[in-house]
Amino acid sequence: MPLIPRLRQLSTFALLVPCFALAAPPSAPNGIELPSGYKDWRVIAPSHREDNKTLRVILGNDVAIKAARAGDTHPWPEGSILAKLVWKDGSHAAWPSATVPAEFVHAEFMIKDSARFKDTGGWGFARWKGLDQVPHGSDASFVNECFGCHQPVREDDYVFTHPARLP
Amino acid sequence: MPLIPRLRQLSTFALLVPCFALAAPPSAPNGIELPSGYKDWRVIAPSHREDNKTLRVILGNDVAIKAARAGDTHPWPEGSILAKLVWKDGSHAAWPSATVPAEFVHAEFMIKDSARFKDTGGWGFARWKGLDQVPHGSDASFVNECFGCHQPVREDDYVFTHPARLP
Repeated sequence: MPLIPRLRQLSTFALLVPCFALAAPPSAPNGIELPSGYKDWRVIAPSHREDNKTLRVILGNDVAIKAARAGDTHPWPEGSILAKLVWKDGSHAAWPSATVPAEFVHAEFMIKDSARFKDTGGWGFARWKGLDQVPHGSDASFVNECFGCHQPVREDDYVFTHPARLP
Repeated sequence: MPLIPRLRQLSTFALLVPCFALAAPPSAPNGIELPSGYKDWRVIAPSHREDNKTLRVILGNDVAIKAARAGDTHPWPEGSILAKLVWKDGSHAAWPSATVPAEFVHAEFMIKDSARFKDTGGWGFARWKGLDQVPHGSDASFVNECFGCHQPVREDDYVFTHPARLP
């Protein structure tokens, strides 16, 4: 191949690689897409699970934050999305009695859409694992695991998180 | 007084009361004003201090978030503001091995302005306590307590928080 067409071919390839690198992660097996921009959402509460040694921050989209701040979460309004960011427990070299985030475990989501997710309390569940954001679950039945675990808080619209008090 | 002017007087009073209620909290004794809008800032990391039984979320203003995500925190850039929101440990009735936020303790701030705060590592420290947001400290010397406690992380620009990894 002459030089110019070969360079053109190479430059097309060079343009495509970053596009693939920026592509959204695959959807969850139940069809839920990773909510865009969730890392920029505002805080509802932190938590620390000492059974599985993980630190968490629960964020909300604008609908959820408005509801959380107004105390309007029984039930959470349609369109609410809760994002739970989870890290393994780590220790702080300069403050040994503090637990701080170590490796990133996963981002979990609850999406309130009562019509679409009527079989799971009006919430769609999904999880993307690790820094590579790999969808959790081999098929759509993975939501039984999520919904089962949330049964103890059925009276709180299936949500464990109580919005943290703020001034 | 005739009825109409008296009603006017009452309605003026009724308008003034909510204005006072919405006034900003007093400045800290070192002159730092409570940064506006901090509850809407984005997350840098959670943490859990098991010595004094508190859960924390560390937020950053736009300058700090940009630096945290770029790994550009040695030193943190001028204009960075870190906000640490602190709650007493609480337990979750439906998940006893989880620690969740109970009462709000205080909001603490570190403001990077190397010229203004040259005596304390380039950082201005301030704290507002409780839901009433009462400034901490009886005079400007309270910063010695803050800066003293941050000495172990002098090599990390006096900041304990390492930005949590995110996808």
